[in-house]
Amino acid sequence: MKRLILQILAKILPIQTAYAHCDLPCGVYNPLQARIEAESILNIMKKYQESKDEVFKIRAILIKEERAELVKHHLWVLWTDYFKPEHAKRFPQLHDLFWRATKLAGQTKKSVDPKDGEKLLDLIDEIDDIFKKTKAVK
Amino acid sequence: MKRLILQILAKILPIQTAYAHCDLPCGVYNPLQARIEAESILNIMKKYQESKDEVFKIRAILIKEERAELVKHHLWVLWTDYFKPEHAKRFPQLHDLFWRATKLAGQTKKSVDPKDGEKLLDLIDEIDDIFKKTKAVK
Amino acid sequence: MKRLILQILAKILPIQTAYAHCDLPCGVYNPLQARIEAESILNIMKKYQESKDEVFKIRAILIKEERAELVKHHLWVLWTDYFKPEHAKRFPQLHDLFWRATKLAGQTKKSVDPKDGEKLLDLIDEIDDIFKKTKAVK
Amino acid sequence: MKRLILQILAKILPIQTAYAHCDLPCGVYNPLQARIEAESILNIMKKYQESKDEVFKIRAILIKEERAELVKHHLWVLWTDYFKPEHAKRFPQLHDLFWRATKLAGQTKKSVDPKDGEKLLDLIDEIDDIFKKTKAVK
Amino acid sequence: MKRLILQILAKILPIQTAYAHCDLPCGVYNPLQARIEAESILNIMKKYQESKDEVFKIRAILIKEERAELVKHHLWVLWTDYFKPEHAKRFPQLHDLFWRATKLAGQTKKSVDPKDGEKLLDLIDEIDDIFKKTKAVK
Amino acid sequence: MKRLILQILAKILPIQTAYAHCDLPCGVYNPLQARIEAESILNIMKKYQESKDEVFKIRAILIKEERAELVKHHLWVLWTDYFKPEHAKRFPQLHDLFWRATKLAGQTKKSVDPKDGEKLLDLIDEIDDIFKKTKAVK
Repeated sequence: MKRLILQILAKILPIQTAYAHCDLPCGVYNPLQARIEAESILNIMKKYQESKDEVFKIRAILIKEERAELVKHHLWVLWTDYFKPEHAKRFPQLHDLFWRATKLAGQTKKSVDPKDGEKLLDLIDEIDDIFKKTKAVK
Repeated sequence: MKRLILQILAKILPIQTAYAHCDLPCGVYNPLQARIEAESILNIMKKYQESKDEVFKIRAILIKEERAELVKHHLWVLWTDYFKPEHAKRFPQLHDLFWRATKLAGQTKKSVDPKDGEKLLDLIDEIDDIFKKTKAVK
Repeated sequence: MKRLILQILAKILPIQTAYAHCDLPCGVYNPLQARIEAESILNIMKKYQESKDEVFKIRAILIKEERAELVKHHLWVLWTDYFKPEHAKRFPQLHDLFWRATKLAGQTKKSVDPKDGEKLLDLIDEIDDIFKKTKAVK
Repeated sequence: MKRLILQILAKILPIQTAYAHCDLPCGVYNPLQARIEAESILNIMKKYQESKDEVFKIRAILIKEERAELVKHHLWVLWTDYFKPEHAKRFPQLHDLFWRATKLAGQTKKSVDPKDGEKLLDLIDEIDDIFKKTKAVK
Repeated sequence: MKRLILQILAKILPIQTAYAHCDLPCGVYNPLQARIEAESILNIMKKYQESKDEVFKIRAILIKEERAELVKHHLWVLWTDYFKPEHAKRFPQLHDLFWRATKLAGQTKKSVDPKDGEKLLDLIDEIDDIFKKTKAVK
Repeated sequence: MKRLILQILAKILPIQTAYAHCDLPCGVYNPLQARIEAESILNIMKKYQESKDEVFKIRAILIKEERAELVKHHLWVLWTDYFKPEHAKRFPQLHDLFWRATKLAGQTKKSVDPKDGEKLLDLIDEIDDIFKKTKAVK
């Protein structure tokens, strides 16, 4: 049933959901890996703001640090390993977009303001849009 | 635009796409993390069968080893951190299903037969079905 | 001399001390790996309570976080890789016991109360008891 | 019951089994951490000799590589973090013993000869003897 | 004495040798981190060509894999964390240079040809030249 | 041009800058790897003293923890993998020097006093001096 729904969706929408990420290359890439960690960052920021528990707040900062590092890593892998010169030609903003997104991910380590988490999600969405367009071509 | 489509989908379909995985808890969990690695395993197995390049084959085995370890890790986190006693009551097969899936992930380290990769994906799909049902309740 | 003592002990007591943990499988498993980290957690909790040094307290929380993650990892490996279906049949509490132990290990990240550290050690002892019984059969 | 046995043992024998390893310091150190990995290395070497399966042999080499790295790490931590100047004075062979043991652990990465695995276990036993003597003093 | 020599050198040559790499930021960056790993890759390639030892060759491939991953990581950190918009304006080739260098580092995982190792070192030298020019400005 | 300068420097000064660190052995070792992390520790300590931002201070402690662990690791690798018995004979202080340096690196985790960071750099300089002398012989 789930498979049927996915097949229908695959026809209605320009969406594809599984790809390459291991330098073999295995051909499995997915911006969702970065997105999952970025959503985690946003939620941690929100919970940090609401909390008065000192231990919780220290843990929030250290876990956010790790999650932001993972966002950077997943985005770097996508930039270097998935995208090809023809993509860079078609989307001239590609390099700058990844640069700003990974820089912002680094800044979310410093910030506890949910707005920074939301901005990071927006940039990952921009990357995801380009990613989907390159997939649609195929 | 993408957000609008997602909002519409969220109303039509019993699907939700972002959850919890960091012991804070941040509330972000997603079986897709395990699935992405398992798809990578399946592709590596296929490419291994087709290749005659010795270096490639050694690399295929070592990368598959890492990917299988990640599958195990993501499944373990899901089992321990996301699922609650009420879920275990409602889905009595839960523990055994995770046990078989993580055991099979371990076996895909040893195997280069794509059929094992497919079986692993099937078990992750079963977990994903249960996961989505627990989300639908909410 | 140490070997002689160990040989004598091995005959008097139902204890065995070295086993399997690497998916090869190498056949070396030992619940003591989880126990060592859990003892560390308990000591960190005690020292946290006694300390007034801010840097020390932050470090205590971050090191405890890592140790608790290691407890979870060692227990997960034991559950998935060492235990076999015949063990699960003989010890029907097996899955639930590991689930509660790994959940509690996750909770010791949040807590600085030595009582939680002690409860974790108790659950690891329960696992160790079952482990030794499965070894004794052999 | 197990606790009772351990308490009795603690009185009869000059053995203590739980200590320090995290720079806090938590006070939990145990040469058994290195020993468990070294036993794994020995078993991998034996299985490598018996196997004719190419995938198994490649995996054996890569897993042995990781285990040997862990032996080195656990021994380095013990040397730097647990041992104190008074121990180095009482056991003048201490530095050289750890140097030879970590060098040998590095060599077990290159070797598939079980004799090298046994020699490594012997050196870890020597370290363990000294460790236990420093504990007995306390 | 060494410090004196370094101080003299610092005045004669447009060279500076210590910088930022931890998102704090600590202000310590150095392309030499990537270079050391790349030199290791080149040497592994050469030794691979000369060796007939099967275990050695498998280990060479797996260690080269890790070293190439470290080259990618160190370059990514430099690109995202050290370089600022004014640098990207002054050196318009910056993004493309890092993209090609990290792509080539990924390819050295697949290759055992020392020429690929040398090309990687050349690209790291190009990055290092730009890096030193940005330092000289300060 | 850079290569020319380096070649000239190589003749004027008893300095060599690239070596072995991977147990293959690849023949690439460099005390600068430890030094870069130690410089980071010193800068973090200074910035910690100047800051009043609670999030920054927590992050400083956790990043310093990681950097100090890296210093320990790089020094351990150098001690075990690069230095040979003939070096230990020629420099009888070798083992004790590494022991004190790695112990001090562990202590910089606890300290936020820049003086401790400077002492660590001094010990790494002492190691570097010996390292260069062993290289000069060749």
